[in-house]
Parts: sequence; structure tokens; C-alpha cells
Amino acid sequence: MTDNTFGTLFSFTSFGESHGPAIGCVVDGVPPRLPLSAADIQPYLDRRKPGQNRFVTQRREADEVEILSGTYEGHTTGTPIGLLIRNTDQRSKDYGEIANQFRPGHADYTYQEKYGIRDHRGGGRSSARETAMRVAAGAIADITLKHILGEAFCIRASVIQIGPHAIDPSRFCVDEIDNNPFFCGDAIAAQEWEAYLDDVRKSGSSAGAILEVVATGIPAGLGQPIYGKLDAEIASAMMGINAAKGVEIGSGFGLSSLPGTDAGDEMRAGADGPEFTSNHAGGILGGISTGQPITARIAIKPTSSILTPRTSIDREGNEVEVVTKGRHDPCVGIRGVPVVEAMMAIVLLDQMMRHQAQTTLF
Amino acid sequence: MTDNTFGTLFSFTSFGESHGPAIGCVVDGVPPRLPLSAADIQPYLDRRKPGQNRFVTQRREADEVEILSGTYEGHTTGTPIGLLIRNTDQRSKDYGEIANQFRPGHADYTYQEKYGIRDHRGGGRSSARETAMRVAAGAIADITLKHILGEAFCIRASVIQIGPHAIDPSRFCVDEIDNNPFFCGDAIAAQEWEAYLDDVRKSGSSAGAILEVVATGIPAGLGQPIYGKLDAEIASAMMGINAAKGVEIGSGFGLSSLPGTDAGDEMRAGADGPEFTSNHAGGILGGISTGQPITARIAIKPTSSILTPRTSIDREGNEVEVVTKGRHDPCVGIRGVPVVEAMMAIVLLDQMMRHQAQTTLF
Amino acid sequence: MTDNTFGTLFSFTSFGESHGPAIGCVVDGVPPRLPLSAADIQPYLDRRKPGQNRFVTQRREADEVEILSGTYEGHTTGTPIGLLIRNTDQRSKDYGEIANQFRPGHADYTYQEKYGIRDHRGGGRSSARETAMRVAAGAIADITLKHILGEAFCIRASVIQIGPHAIDPSRFCVDEIDNNPFFCGDAIAAQEWEAYLDDVRKSGSSAGAILEVVATGIPAGLGQPIYGKLDAEIASAMMGINAAKGVEIGSGFGLSSLPGTDAGDEMRAGADGPEFTSNHAGGILGGISTGQPITARIAIKPTSSILTPRTSIDREGNEVEVVTKGRHDPCVGIRGVPVVEAMMAIVLLDQMMRHQAQTTLF
Amino acid sequence: MTDNTFGTLFSFTSFGESHGPAIGCVVDGVPPRLPLSAADIQPYLDRRKPGQNRFVTQRREADEVEILSGTYEGHTTGTPIGLLIRNTDQRSKDYGEIANQFRPGHADYTYQEKYGIRDHRGGGRSSARETAMRVAAGAIADITLKHILGEAFCIRASVIQIGPHAIDPSRFCVDEIDNNPFFCGDAIAAQEWEAYLDDVRKSGSSAGAILEVVATGIPAGLGQPIYGKLDAEIASAMMGINAAKGVEIGSGFGLSSLPGTDAGDEMRAGADGPEFTSNHAGGILGGISTGQPITARIAIKPTSSILTPRTSIDREGNEVEVVTKGRHDPCVGIRGVPVVEAMMAIVLLDQMMRHQAQTTLF
Repeated sequence: MTDNTFGTLFSFTSFGESHGPAIGCVVDGVPPRLPLSAADIQPYLDRRKPGQNRFVTQRREADEVEILSGTYEGHTTGTPIGLLIRNTDQRSKDYGEIANQFRPGHADYTYQEKYGIRDHRGGGRSSARETAMRVAAGAIADITLKHILGEAFCIRASVIQIGPHAIDPSRFCVDEIDNNPFFCGDAIAAQEWEAYLDDVRKSGSSAGAILEVVATGIPAGLGQPIYGKLDAEIASAMMGINAAKGVEIGSGFGLSSLPGTDAGDEMRAGADGPEFTSNHAGGILGGISTGQPITARIAIKPTSSILTPRTSIDREGNEVEVVTKGRHDPCVGIRGVPVVEAMMAIVLLDQMMRHQAQTTLF
Repeated sequence: MTDNTFGTLFSFTSFGESHGPAIGCVVDGVPPRLPLSAADIQPYLDRRKPGQNRFVTQRREADEVEILSGTYEGHTTGTPIGLLIRNTDQRSKDYGEIANQFRPGHADYTYQEKYGIRDHRGGGRSSARETAMRVAAGAIADITLKHILGEAFCIRASVIQIGPHAIDPSRFCVDEIDNNPFFCGDAIAAQEWEAYLDDVRKSGSSAGAILEVVATGIPAGLGQPIYGKLDAEIASAMMGINAAKGVEIGSGFGLSSLPGTDAGDEMRAGADGPEFTSNHAGGILGGISTGQPITARIAIKPTSSILTPRTSIDREGNEVEVVTKGRHDPCVGIRGVPVVEAMMAIVLLDQMMRHQAQTTLF
Repeated sequence: MTDNTFGTLFSFTSFGESHGPAIGCVVDGVPPRLPLSAADIQPYLDRRKPGQNRFVTQRREADEVEILSGTYEGHTTGTPIGLLIRNTDQRSKDYGEIANQFRPGHADYTYQEKYGIRDHRGGGRSSARETAMRVAAGAIADITLKHILGEAFCIRASVIQIGPHAIDPSRFCVDEIDNNPFFCGDAIAAQEWEAYLDDVRKSGSSAGAILEVVATGIPAGLGQPIYGKLDAEIASAMMGINAAKGVEIGSGFGLSSLPGTDAGDEMRAGADGPEFTSNHAGGILGGISTGQPITARIAIKPTSSILTPRTSIDREGNEVEVVTKGRHDPCVGIRGVPVVEAMMAIVLLDQMMRHQAQTTLF
Repeated sequence: MTDNTFGTLFSFTSFGESHGPAIGCVVDGVPPRLPLSAADIQPYLDRRKPGQNRFVTQRREADEVEILSGTYEGHTTGTPIGLLIRNTDQRSKDYGEIANQFRPGHADYTYQEKYGIRDHRGGGRSSARETAMRVAAGAIADITLKHILGEAFCIRASVIQIGPHAIDPSRFCVDEIDNNPFFCGDAIAAQEWEAYLDDVRKSGSSAGAILEVVATGIPAGLGQPIYGKLDAEIASAMMGINAAKGVEIGSGFGLSSLPGTDAGDEMRAGADGPEFTSNHAGGILGGISTGQPITARIAIKPTSSILTPRTSIDREGNEVEVVTKGRHDPCVGIRGVPVVEAMMAIVLLDQMMRHQAQTTLF
């Protein structure tokens, strides 16, 4: 029940603050005999790495992951995998002014209220820096799932809206996602966002985003009813991501407006087995996967660290004007894409292992 | 990690199928010396009970809860509370035709795929009937929280949209919620919904809904970062409710469109301590409560059991036309209101206990 | 982490007090499609049932178990199995005198200190009556293991010492165990114990016992290092049994005196695979099963409820003389035999499922 | 449920192999605002450190622990504490010969059977080297308990038997424990053991041990019945230590032989509250602490790595003669003393937090 652990059979336990010596995690439950090296994990981290373009934080860190345990001669051994990333670019002085202030939209106030102490530097434990470990653990889950499920398996997230500007779904192309700095599948929207985000940054503001994630090649039957439902686990995983404020599965909130005669996905006898004629359910019925693509959307609020002055209080209760300097993403949602993919991989592998345990003994 | 348990320190483990002998649960972690009897729990169940008006299923069951353990002379003892409700109105014959068919939108297909066997009667374990135990466990949580937090504490859910018809928030009045069969805080919307749902039923269709829940009187500091965040736990609790497809906290998906200059809730030095000037965050920052009201919305899909014929397949893979007879809610979201309240109470008490454990030792 | 749950993947959550309306449990993680009815579980309970001879408590209850969920047409469905036993013979008046006193050796004082309230009747929750649910849950585990492992699998416990009188191991015969009221594999020792226990009872005293359990037909590889070791789980399971004060695996405490040259079990290349030439390790190395029989011994203290007056205090702190009337086993260890077998079955099935989850995905 | 995590509310998750780059752990649930630095933890590790005298392994490592997170300005923040110890003295070549052999008494065979792969170097994950992290996590627990409970609180383990040679309890003096290389409270026995162990080593053999641990200053009421009993948790913690084969609480196995009239500890009305006249129960009744000293004994088998040749098989199933070179403790039980203390501290703090959560809300 440790509060810094996610997952049950496949799990990881993370530690580390934004400006401490290091961040790291322990990945437990990894199947043995899987080929794995740090070089396999690094590309996942590189996709999330800050400083890659002007739309994400200019903090520059190599984010080189070190495997400390759990592998032998290039293969997993079934023992826990310790992962470590040293923090190298910690400009704590940028944060000096706000040591005593509660930045609006941040966890400053709540950590202080909860613990009576906080490491304010860069947000401390509440910093999105911790998500690097989710990506690293998710990399191991993704590699494991690829090993088990083969080519058909794929998890792909993208940004489908920045601020009020949504993509045109008819222009969506999965191959486009890696061609722009926004993980956007609509090339035209990506161009518009570039101008929009330049304006946002110049005005000292920031923007929110909506992300979509699709997992294909997932067999039917994964998910543990009643309280370990696949969709409940996805909801927990996604809402636990920094700045996330909403999660929906399949047609989500839109399903509430559909008539019942349209809402339930019909089935047909297909050439290769059962086929669904639609996927409003997002690949999940009764908390269990149907075999269709699993789809979810996540709402990310605008970056709370902005240059525009805002009113707040300090630890003594005095009103203060807060300006967040430091280096911040104008739209923190963008870098959420690899994190969303990672968490989806972790949930799916964990559910696969839970399913395996109960249903394959005889 | 039992899949039929929800909660960590305050928890409940449920069992039971729609048409089996009984449903029940074990509530664990209840603080000792709390006044409690079955009569205290029953009103919560009565609010959820079917058969109360023509907009919910006509199945009629007393749903009388029996306390089997954990109390002595009208007080809790700290030992687990066993709760039992016998199933009394089980018309299994209604379901005979669909024993071999997969109803669109239902968990029939996925249970069959997962387990290779299923109790089809009334949906078996996947039936919303199980939510009676969530309500019973939630009643104990709510009573405990009232005992601890006093008058200021209140959890109140309501239906804010049925089908495409949303309430007018300016007309919302909390006292109105219990004055209509829809748990609706807008009296005019409630009248419109009555006509709308009559049409829906006559046309052999069903409607979805959006629910909102607000918890007031919650102290700041509850919620365990990083993977036991208050919002992540709420998301898991709500998405685990039957037919739920979306969850958002505070301004939720709407936050994605707000500029950063508006999104972060500002603070002022109020007469009685810190005050927030808005609550886009829904009372949660960094996964920890701020002391503001905690707000969430839940999307519920239309009832999948409808009289209009739909195409599906049977266990042998043949295409079939499915008509769901039986007695069903035209809008299952309505009866979700007490369930949403119950799950919120359980999450909050659980988090309060987790907070207590770590931060009050010295 | 619920305190009334045992097990991780295969688990059960129990509730109930000695003199409440009922005891029961929820068994979770049961594999689907297993043939199971109440009639399959009842024989396990009958072996533990009180009132069967003069060496165990004369409380007489049918202890008829009812399956409330989780089966359909005589097979498990993979959903949780609710089990219920009504308490029928509750002579609460026997306990009136001690409502306010702390019986030596009992949990009266500690429950009062912990919770500030207690159901004193028959020991309430701390009564060995709760072990009926362990036996019921263990029955399901045992039946499942038999289904998976076949004829080679067997768990058998017996009493090897009562008071200071140990069996002669050279006379031990497994077929003898069910031929006497002591679950004793040494027919001559059983006769001696009969006389001994008659004396003990007449003198108003009671006797302790040592139990031994052997599980055969267990494959190598079960057990999760480092903190889910098979022996650590067995230790937890056995020490959690009422009145247990010691657990040892294999040669246990005796191993401390052996020279290292004798202690490690050697291996040979046998006709059917590796063979061990001894089993000091009790079938477990590094927390993982070796394929040899798994053996453990459990120390049970004398029944604390005795007719001889003892000095103690009451709730107000006054010194009192305590005489425990009621109906009690002169040697509570005897009825521990089916409980020990049950807990062993639960641990083994749970470990088998954990092993299955991690190592059989590819 | 991660297999490399111990504890529920106060917990730690360890990783690392004997000859990998590092060992480490994540300690979760630490109360905030506790003064803590690496210098506070180091003395605990130094007590366990190898190479300090000729009776323990001659492997020499600084075992310097680094705190990677969870503290700020010398105090804990309530966030997880990452701890790291680099492995510096890894003579893997010593182990070359046995890469393919299964050493009797070791986990070589079982790891291979379980995972199909193993890091044989120094025993890999099954090495006692991992216990350094138990000691480090236990140090934090001990420091926390001292902070809460003050001077009265103390956990002290010692060796009370090596091979067949037990101490004379009448000569036991707690101040003597740190005056000899055996953590022995009986100075005369310590001298005898010195000669005995020299003989054992010269003969190429090894010796087992029995350890005793006593925790004083523990309030009544700690321990969660039914399956989170204080004694069951202690049993699990102790049996999970490398080479442990038995655990007993209080008078343990000896209680089985006592008459019931002597076994239950009587109470008196003392000047400062209730007093017990004996402590056969080892400070635990019904799984809950009584306020008396908590006492346990642990049986440790002889070191399995010995110079005397033993017969075993290799991975291909051929019979081989195994001689373990490398550097090994002639009696591994000695260095178990700080590990036993550490695990006791972890169990007690965890139980204190669980107790706090449930019983102090109102």
C-alpha cells in the first residue's frame, strides 16, 4: 500500500525530488529472461526529455538512466530492477523567492498543510520531474508487452487539443505524431499550435491540453472486476499524472448524450472471429477488455508556473504577488505524451499478469 | 490486492451476484466506539432502492441490510463489519433467452472471454445490484466522517444532465435534489427530463447522464502523493461504478481550454485563514485537498438493456438479434447518485486514515 | 492491506465474532470453472467441528456452511465466493461474570487497550471460532490444488506432542492420524495422551501441543523472494493461528546445533531428476520450494480458559480472581490440525498464482 | 503486493544483487519533520558491516549509505527516502567455478528452477548482502520510534547460542553485548565460542545460531488482529531473514510443555497501572501488545558456504563435488543481530502507524 508504488503484480516504486541528488525507482514483478539493457530504456526517456525545443522547459539534463540490479548478461532475472537518474542541472537559486510563497495552481500550499515542511525547490516531489521514472518503468512494461504480444501490440498517445484548439480528427495520421514538437497527429493543427503557443508564451500565460491514447493488439479478457477494473486502473493511472484533471474512456462524456440505441457497440460474426461495428466503449466492457483498441483521453490543465503576476499568500498568511521565474513548459501537456503511454503500458502488463495468475492454472 | 476490495485502511470487500442467494460485504478498518446499527445504514440503501418510481427498474426488493459482526451494544468494536442483503426478487426466467447471447454494451462477452464461464442471470456479478454494497459501506464511511468532522461535512451528488439535456446551473438548489425522482437540483430541468425519459422509454431506448458530486467540510492535507493521490483515488472509485465512462475533477476537461492566467486558483488572506477566489482545481492540488469543496463529475452511459432489437453474436459465434426484456432503468445514471456519494465517502475516510497514520505520530 | 484478509492473489477476508449472529468470509481469486459446492467444503469443517469428543469444547454447532456467491451450476465463476455460517449455540450468559475482567492468557486486556471497547462474549473476535472460516477458505484452496497437482499433492497435519509428551517418530503412521481423537500418527502416544488429558481436565488445567504439517507433491519454484518468501508466508500464516507461539521450517531450531557439514541437504542425480539426500531445509531454500516435501512445526500454548482460579485485574484496575467457566478444549492445539492444513493450502495456492503471473507469460 | 517490499504503512522496497553495481531501497511512509541524515543511519550499518573480525566474512566494503531523496535541510519531508550503497568489493572471479553448480543449502537450485536464469555471483539476490538495506530502513524506523517513545524504548538483539553451545541466562548482561565479536550478553560464553568457532573454521565447517530480540517501552494495543497480528508480522519478518528456519515468541515452543495453570501470565494492580507477574506471552496476546517487553527468538542455520566438499548436481544434472571458496562467515547468525533489530523496528513502527490510523480519529 506504499503511496509511491503503482501497480500490483507489475509495479514500480519511485523516489526523488526535482532538485535532490537523484530520482529513481524499483521495478518489481518483471518476468525473467527478457532481453533488457539501459540502451533499451533510454529512447523512451529521450522522447520525454526537456530542452528539446522552445515549447518545453529549457532545463537541460541528460536524463541518463542506470540499471542498478535485476539483469544479468543482458537479460532480466526476475529480481527487482533498480533504476537511477542523477539530477545534474539544478538551479535552486531560481526558486529562492518562492520558498515562502504558495504559487497558485501548485502543490505548495497543500504539501505545507499536509506535512508541515516541504522542499520548495522546483516543486520538490510534486515536480513533473518524477514522471521520468514512470517513463522508465513504462519502457520496461512496453518492451515486455511487445515481447509477449508481438507486432499487433502498440500504444500510441498524442495531443489532440492545445488550449481551445482541437485537431481535425479527419486529418489525424499516426505517422505524423513524431514529425512535430507537439506529438500531434494533425500536421495543420501542429502549425497553428506553434503560432498559438508563441503568443501564449509572450503574453506570460500558458495553455492546457487534451491527450488521447490508443492501445491496439490487446487480447480480450484483461481487467479484474469489480475494483480492479481495467478502466478504473487506467483512470487512476492517468489522473495521477501531474496536472491531469479529467479522464474518459472511449466516447466518454459524449456517451452521456447518445441514445441507448446507438451507445452499445454491436457485434458481428467476422471472418476471424467476433467483430464490433463501433467502439464507443473504448475497448472495455464491465471493466474487461473486449479485444478492440483501448482508447482514453486525458485533460491536462495549463502550466501553473507563469510569468504573469498572480495573487496568493505566504506561509505567514500575508498576501503576496507571485511571479514564477525558472524554466517552464508553456504547455506541460505536451511532455505528458510519453508519460501517458508509459502508464498505459504499466496498467496493461499488470492486468495481464493478474489475469494470467487466476485463469491459466488449469 | 483482492480484486473485490476497495480502499486501503478503510476498505470493503464485496461479493454476490444479481440472482444468487445474497449480496454482502466485509467493511474493515472501521474506527471503534462509533454508534452504529442497521437502522443507520438502511436510509442510505433506501435512496438507491429500485422500484421507487417509473424511471428506475421495477425490480422490487426490500434490500434490508443485516449487520453480522463488528458491533456490540450499538457501537463499533474495531473488528470487521459483515453486511448481508438477501436477494428476494429473482426472476431468472426473464433472462433465459440471453443465456447464450452477448448483449451489446454489456459485460456478457468479456466475462465469457475472461473466465470461460458466466452467471448470465441479470448480468451476474457485473450487475449494478452489487452497488448496494458500495452504498452500505459508504454509509458507514459517511457516518464516521460526520462523527469526526461535524456539521460542516457534507457529501452531495446530483444528476446535472440526462441525455443531451443539462441543467441550468444558475437554477441549481441543493434542497431541490430530493424533491424529484432524478436527484436533480434544477426543478425545471427535472420536469423536462420527465417528459424526455417517457419518450425514451416508449421508443425502446435509454439515456445517459452526467452526475456531479461535491464534498464540503474536508480539511486541507488529505491525499497521498504520488500514486495515492486524492484525485486518482476518486477517479478509480468513480470509473469503477457500473456504466461510468468518464471522470473529471473541478473544471476538468474545461480546464484544458482556459488560459494559464485564469486556471490557477488565487489565494487571499481571509478573516478565518486562507481563502481561494475560485475552485477550478476542485479542491485538490498535487493530489492533496486544499480545504475547498471537492468536486467531481462522472459520465454514465445509457442503460445497455433496451427493448429495441440489436445485432450481436451468440457463444457459438452466430449472429443473433438481441432484445433485452427484464426490468431495467431507462437511465441507470439516476440511481448512481447514492453510489457516487458512497464512493466519495469511502475515499475520503480512507485518505483521512492514511493521513492520520503518517503525520500525527509526533 | 485489510487486517482481516489473508493472502494476495488467492485471498480470503473473514468477519464474525464468537457470539454474534454469524461468521463468514469472502474468498477471492478462485480460478474459474472449478467444480465446487457446499458439500465439498463441509467435510473440512466437520473435521474441525467442536463437540465431537470429550477432549474438545462441548459447544455444539452444526457449522453448516452456505455458499452465497461465486458459483454457477456447480462450478466456480472466478467471482468472489461468499461463505456464511450462522452461530446457533451462543450461551452468552456463561460469560457474564467476565465481562469486566481480563482473563490471563486471553486477548481481553489487549483488545480493551487497543479499541477501548470489546465484545467479551466467548472472546468475541479473538475466539478460535473464527478459524472455521480459515478452514472453509482452505478447503477451496485444497480442492483447487488437488485439481491442479493431482494425486501427488497432499497436505497432512498431525499433533506430535501434547504437554511434555511427544510421539515416537519411529511409530508415526499417516494412516493412524484419523483413528484417534488427537489427529495423532502414533497410536501408542494417542492412548497415553488420553489418560494424560483426562488428568489435566480433572485438575482444572490445560495442555499445549506441537503440530507438524507436511505438504507433498509441491513443484519446485514456488515462493517469492525477498519479502514474499514461502517460509515467511508460512510463518505468518501459522503464527496468526490462535494460541500459536512458535513456527519452524524443516529441522528448524534443531538446525542451529547441526554442523554446517551436515546442515545443507546434498543432491544426487536421480532416475527421475534431481534428488535430495535429506530435507533439513523443509523443502524451502532461499524462500523458494525445492520440490521436496514442505514441512513445518507449530507450537500451541495451553488453553487459557481453565477452571483453576487465577489472579488478574478488572477494567477498573482492581485485582480479581478469575475462573473461566464456559465450555473449553483442554488442549486447543488438537483442533488446530485442520486449521494448520487450511492455512498451508492457502499459502501454497497463493504462491502458485504469484509464480504463475510472473514466470509463464513467455 | 510487490515481493520486494516489506511493511504496509511504514515500508521499504529493496533492490540489488551481491555483485551488481549497487544495492538500495525506497523507504516509504516516513513521518515528516524528523531530524535525519546519512550520518544517523551509518552507525546501524557499521554494526552489520563485514570484515570487522575473523568470525565474519572478510569481504571489505565501506557500505556507505547515500540518501537520495526525502529529506530537506536535515529533516524528513514525508516523501519517500531513496537509499543507495554502491558495491565496491566484488570479486566475481571467486565464483566462476560454481556458475553452473547448485551449492547445497543455497538458493542456487531454487532460483534456477523458478526463473530459468540466475545471477550466480555471490548468490546474487539471495545473498545476505541485501540485508544491509533492511538495516538501513530499520535504522530510520528505530530513529522514528525513539523520537516518539523516548528513553523507555529500546530494541536489543543478541546471540544466545552458537552451534550446540547456549549462553547461561543467569550470566546475561545487556551491556556485555557490544564487548565481544558475537553480540553475546554472556562474557564467558563468548570466550568459549571463540575457541569453538576457530575449530569450526579450521575443520572447514560452519555453525548455526539462535538469536534473541527484546523490545521494551512498547505501549499496549499495537497489532492488528486477525491477519496483521503483531506476532504474525514478527514471524514473517524474522523468517524472511536469510538462513532463518524458526521463530518463537515469548516462551515459544517451551509453552507447549507448560501446564495451563502456569502458562497464562497473571496480572496485578501495580503502582503505575497493571503489572504482569510473568511474560510467557512475550508481550503479545491475541496478536496485540500488552505493554510488556516483546521477546522473540530466531533460529539461524549454519552458513551453507563451506570449504568441505559436498555432493550436488550441476545445471545439466550431473553429479559434482562442490567446494565453496570465496569469503564467508563461519557463523552467519552473528551478523544477523543488527538485521533482527532492524526488522523488529520496522514491524513495530508499521503497527504503530496502523494503530494510529484506526483508533485516534475520534
